[in-house]
Amino acid sequence: MQIKKIILLLLVVLSGTNSQAQKNARPNIIVFLVDDMGWMDTSVPFADSIMPLNRRYHTPNMERLAATGVKFTNAYAQPVCTPSRTSMLTGMNAARTRITNWTSPDKNIDSDAGDQQFAPLGWNRNGLSSVPGTGHTAYATPFPQLLKEAGYYTIQVGKAHWGAAGTPGANPYNLGFMVNIAGHAGGHPQSYLSEQRYGNMPGKAQMQAVPDLEEYYDTHTFLTEALTREALKALENPIRRKEPFYLNMCQYAVHTPIMADPRFVQKYYDAGLDSVEAAYASLLEGMDKSLGDIMDYLQRKGVAGNTIVIFMSDNGGLDHHQRGGAVNTHNSPLRSGKGAVYEGGIREPMIVKWPGVTRAGTVNSSPVIIEDFFPSILEMARVGSVHTVQQVDGRSFVPLLKNIQKPAARPLIFHYPHKWINIRTNEEAKLGINYYTAMRYDHWKLIYRMRTQGFELYDLSKDLRETNDLAQVEKEQVKKLALIFGRTLKERSAQMPVDKRTGKAVPFPDEAIQ
Amino acid sequence: MQIKKIILLLLVVLSGTNSQAQKNARPNIIVFLVDDMGWMDTSVPFADSIMPLNRRYHTPNMERLAATGVKFTNAYAQPVCTPSRTSMLTGMNAARTRITNWTSPDKNIDSDAGDQQFAPLGWNRNGLSSVPGTGHTAYATPFPQLLKEAGYYTIQVGKAHWGAAGTPGANPYNLGFMVNIAGHAGGHPQSYLSEQRYGNMPGKAQMQAVPDLEEYYDTHTFLTEALTREALKALENPIRRKEPFYLNMCQYAVHTPIMADPRFVQKYYDAGLDSVEAAYASLLEGMDKSLGDIMDYLQRKGVAGNTIVIFMSDNGGLDHHQRGGAVNTHNSPLRSGKGAVYEGGIREPMIVKWPGVTRAGTVNSSPVIIEDFFPSILEMARVGSVHTVQQVDGRSFVPLLKNIQKPAARPLIFHYPHKWINIRTNEEAKLGINYYTAMRYDHWKLIYRMRTQGFELYDLSKDLRETNDLAQVEKEQVKKLALIFGRTLKERSAQMPVDKRTGKAVPFPDEAIQ
Repeated sequence: MQIKKIILLLLVVLSGTNSQAQKNARPNIIVFLVDDMGWMDTSVPFADSIMPLNRRYHTPNMERLAATGVKFTNAYAQPVCTPSRTSMLTGMNAARTRITNWTSPDKNIDSDAGDQQFAPLGWNRNGLSSVPGTGHTAYATPFPQLLKEAGYYTIQVGKAHWGAAGTPGANPYNLGFMVNIAGHAGGHPQSYLSEQRYGNMPGKAQMQAVPDLEEYYDTHTFLTEALTREALKALENPIRRKEPFYLNMCQYAVHTPIMADPRFVQKYYDAGLDSVEAAYASLLEGMDKSLGDIMDYLQRKGVAGNTIVIFMSDNGGLDHHQRGGAVNTHNSPLRSGKGAVYEGGIREPMIVKWPGVTRAGTVNSSPVIIEDFFPSILEMARVGSVHTVQQVDGRSFVPLLKNIQKPAARPLIFHYPHKWINIRTNEEAKLGINYYTAMRYDHWKLIYRMRTQGFELYDLSKDLRETNDLAQVEKEQVKKLALIFGRTLKERSAQMPVDKRTGKAVPFPDEAIQ
Repeated sequence: MQIKKIILLLLVVLSGTNSQAQKNARPNIIVFLVDDMGWMDTSVPFADSIMPLNRRYHTPNMERLAATGVKFTNAYAQPVCTPSRTSMLTGMNAARTRITNWTSPDKNIDSDAGDQQFAPLGWNRNGLSSVPGTGHTAYATPFPQLLKEAGYYTIQVGKAHWGAAGTPGANPYNLGFMVNIAGHAGGHPQSYLSEQRYGNMPGKAQMQAVPDLEEYYDTHTFLTEALTREALKALENPIRRKEPFYLNMCQYAVHTPIMADPRFVQKYYDAGLDSVEAAYASLLEGMDKSLGDIMDYLQRKGVAGNTIVIFMSDNGGLDHHQRGGAVNTHNSPLRSGKGAVYEGGIREPMIVKWPGVTRAGTVNSSPVIIEDFFPSILEMARVGSVHTVQQVDGRSFVPLLKNIQKPAARPLIFHYPHKWINIRTNEEAKLGINYYTAMRYDHWKLIYRMRTQGFELYDLSKDLRETNDLAQVEKEQVKKLALIFGRTLKERSAQMPVDKRTGKAVPFPDEAIQ
């Protein structure tokens, strides 16, 4: 009996120890989220063959990651950044968060350009909030909060842009992060240069001045590099403590202002790029070095084998303004770019490496979307049934990592009932910018023009460039898809713009098809 | 044998568990450090009787803390802030750090006012650094680093001011903190008002704009309150994780700009104070509310019984400029104020509460000094033999908490080989400001005027006001003390100012006495 008791006690004690060990064995997770990076902004080919832009850009560390992980060739985000970033954190599609445009760093500011046809929209212009009742915000439980509660050490580095100043969402500490460096209400850096103190020049600082980096002022440290060093510093703590960590590594690159990263720009000048495009390419390569430095660090610290690295961008590459060269070329072969519902505005370079789970150098063409990050990351972290105040639209892509089975078709929604920029109506139509909503379903892409209530239909399996509109020849398909599209938008309480003249909202796609 | 083996294994496992439990039982430690608060800036009497200033100010939460802890009536810091703050973090006296003046937020700036007699001093104007070889810095191992390595969750909230921008010391993450909110190279807030965004107004922000508080912009949240809320938010994490924590709670209050805390100012107007002094009193009461809110929070979370709270200020109350009323009245009965080596510049309101160790409502008159915090806090945290790169001057005051035994006399050094402000020479002498060094030894205070190489001697046991200079009548005592003083300064590699005319350094006190 005595022995039995001892053994029983021993088992109890050991099982405690064991669960502790299990807890420690949970994988670390890094999301490396780039800003405004297009699908083609890399030397890793995400199309079926190597494209000219793949030859222009040099991202050797993305190549390294892709070679050892899974490349997702049909990964999506929203056309602009805050909607994607808040979807990622909450698992809600942008139609549901009603954070459908980028948020101003200042509270209660509608970032929409004024429009003749449509009235301003009552969207959640203050972004995400962890506090119910915050005006003009989406209230949700962000996954970093759930990871933190489950014992993860949660770190935010770089661009946050989840909520406006004067609201809880401006502060990553309110969204589940235990450490925040340089994340705030601003959506881009005032400057990438330490000589300009990342914008914090006395008497010149604006809301986009990057906080928390005084250590690097005037040290010739490019913003991308400063953020990397801060991230590695922050990682020391959970690694030393043997705690699982989540790092939300959000480079401000490659968002405007397009400033040359002096470490890399010369070779792009030498290759004959104009000064803007050379600078852009250097921002990309600087970003890529950051990825490489983090991967090297994980190796050095002996935690690479238990660390998942997910590479992603938050919207398509900038195509329209502040870039060198002609419009509609910057994401080629994809059409258009940031702000648009065409593939150039929403398709993203996504790579996932999960040591022991993903197979090296594999490719997955299943459509996935930014809100899928929420359930995927929770599944990776083995956070089981969770309590969230929001309804989650995303689906975990973890099964896709484990086998090559194709998931059932589902609607992926890109909802942009806003005016992003002032351009001519024919340009809007050509580029898919301003007052567009779109759905990808299987290999189909249905686009709904809110201004004219017309449809475009593309078969992405044959027409990646979206040049062959099938809406007039595949009328039944349009109808079928419009029903799914409209139903999904309504189920998500999507907002439609209101016509100033009639005072009526634009009908949903299923209503417009009647 | 089988049983023995099991028991042995069990013991091993249990001892692991036990050491874990012990680890968790280590006390939490909060240093509540106020900026520029004088010895008399409180309704808690630190002198032998209640003084008029004790009746002017209302600090009920300090009263609460003092009633349940130990009041140190002879606690000291340096005459200005960075020297005190860096001494506290390193255990080194300011003479040894050679950080003897406040540091500019900008690198390589000598904050000294220009002087006719003395040349600029090669002091460590960039503050503290965790990286050897950083120009013009003191290299040391800060105690938060040691606490962190020992498993403490280390948090910095509010004013840091340990190092200049462009150097590692500007960033609390380099000095052992795992979390930093609003601490940077700046030494005071540009504004206390959320309506002025704590200084971060587009186009108006200076280096003193307070970072990390965008959440509170335009929410009518006074800086003192915003910092308190951030501190409580940061404390959630170690408390949830059942980890011991160290909170370095550094209110920017009551430093200039002296701006009214609207929650408290009216009653001071009603009491007849002028607008500056009413604002000052309101800053104090707002600071006191922060202390109370933290103590309430500890109670609410059930951790008050295992949390040490240490209240302190970093130099004497401002007396000379930007205050209402006459000079040499703001710390009465003490002489002078901030910047001076008279008691008004260096004596601090210090209270320590260690549940289960300190006895409620006790008073300790042993002289203690800011560098004593280093060994004291490490002893409290049971961090045993530690490796530091610096020589530690401070002595633990933990024995003083545990019994009333008087410690052996030792020299406490206040070294200020600088020009703080431009005032007339006779005012310098009256106030003890500019180019002074002083030593407290037992009940004696020896002051050495660098300009004239003359001495003043006060018996603090009889002459707290320092009005009865005994240097001419107690010549032997002056000689004896000057020897200790000079020897101590030299042992600490103290710097003396250099006369422009002769190119020679001012002799040390023991050399001047010959």
